[in-house]
Amino acid sequence: MCELLGMSANVPTDICFSFRGLMRRGGQTGPHRDGWGIAFYEGKGCRAFHDPAPSCESEIARLVSSYSIKSCVVISHIRRANRGRVSLENTHPFTRELWGRVWTFAHNGQLKGIKERTLTFYEPVGTTDSEHAFCWLLDQIRMQYPEPPKSSGALMRLIRDLATDLGTLGVFNMLLSDGRYLWCHCATNLAWLTRKAPFGPATLIDEDMSVDFAKETTPDDVVTVVATRPLTRDENWTVMKSGEMVVFKGGNRVR
Amino acid sequence: MCELLGMSANVPTDICFSFRGLMRRGGQTGPHRDGWGIAFYEGKGCRAFHDPAPSCESEIARLVSSYSIKSCVVISHIRRANRGRVSLENTHPFTRELWGRVWTFAHNGQLKGIKERTLTFYEPVGTTDSEHAFCWLLDQIRMQYPEPPKSSGALMRLIRDLATDLGTLGVFNMLLSDGRYLWCHCATNLAWLTRKAPFGPATLIDEDMSVDFAKETTPDDVVTVVATRPLTRDENWTVMKSGEMVVFKGGNRVR
Repeated sequence: MCELLGMSANVPTDICFSFRGLMRRGGQTGPHRDGWGIAFYEGKGCRAFHDPAPSCESEIARLVSSYSIKSCVVISHIRRANRGRVSLENTHPFTRELWGRVWTFAHNGQLKGIKERTLTFYEPVGTTDSEHAFCWLLDQIRMQYPEPPKSSGALMRLIRDLATDLGTLGVFNMLLSDGRYLWCHCATNLAWLTRKAPFGPATLIDEDMSVDFAKETTPDDVVTVVATRPLTRDENWTVMKSGEMVVFKGGNRVR
Repeated sequence: MCELLGMSANVPTDICFSFRGLMRRGGQTGPHRDGWGIAFYEGKGCRAFHDPAPSCESEIARLVSSYSIKSCVVISHIRRANRGRVSLENTHPFTRELWGRVWTFAHNGQLKGIKERTLTFYEPVGTTDSEHAFCWLLDQIRMQYPEPPKSSGALMRLIRDLATDLGTLGVFNMLLSDGRYLWCHCATNLAWLTRKAPFGPATLIDEDMSVDFAKETTPDDVVTVVATRPLTRDENWTVMKSGEMVVFKGGNRVR
């Protein structure tokens, strides 16, 4: 199984602490030896790092965990290959442009028969089920809305329905973003946590490391972290239900 | 003016030496203080690094120039902003997917009136003339060939004609790749050099640094480097003519 990590915040925030916990699951405390990737939004721009090598050995992972890139939306993925060979083009997160925005997608699970679904606008570069599912998802959104819908509610409902549909093909734990919203769909494992004032300390489960967020934040900060499994031992994570979708914007839950 | 750097090789080759020369032009020996970016193909996958900060100060630039990512096709760009503000989404190279391949584009120059050209499939994320030109270029290719053309000659002619058309709007020095071919269009400044056996030494113009490629290569290696201006003082660069296009594949010139 792969590990997902997402973040939504109301001010540019670094993900060093959570990423450090996740990275340890890349070959050291976890069995995720088949690459990793991370995408950071900065305004409308999106910066992505991918490495087919295990994250606990990766030069680039070290850069990301030490160099504090600040972002309001982050999606990361550590891969355990089950479909598609280990290569750069099969490494999540995947990105495509729709409506002049960069969309980013990471998935954990398998989707039986997804490759039989016809694609129109977007085509996979690699051979994973996941990238095919992403292309299909964006195709459906684009067919329904060649221009961005005026109502964000309509888009929320459409994405929820599409995620539910994909969920019928197998296991579909998903993180998706357009740089504003962070959509999180749970099939089997996904948990989230919102940090806001009053901030307290947090200790990683996978490494003997603590942060006192009271010292790292301002009182107005709102930061939500989403992960396959809770990353800290002393905070109150919400474990999602199968089939559930939650959506965050600026750190706050909006659906 | 921006600096372009491209590479086409028949074996995965690092670009550390050339990138080091280019990087010095990012704020130190050159006036290119408005960001830089680089894309490396690895098979069908493409890895890109972007930084709106000047490259000579950039943490990521240091990673790229010291950590030898090996690739058969590279496109890099150091920016001097003249259209569009300095931001991640305005930082070249730009990428989009077409026919299940990642296309990468970097441009130097200005194109008057480009934003009046209607776009269909691809939409810019940032505000540069260059990204609009790239979207328009891919739109035209896609409209002409919804599926990849059987003949590579047809694609070559189309891209040459589109580049010539864009050249009528202003200055259009361009590097474009689909991960196999490297298209280079010269308006004002572009020069290329093919290194192959027998290899010899090369000395950077912008920094007191030499490499003896005879020690770094095998006899079958073919590596072409393309840059706005020659990067080395002791090699025989071909300076391109205005309106000329050359195309490389696996290090060799194919058009």
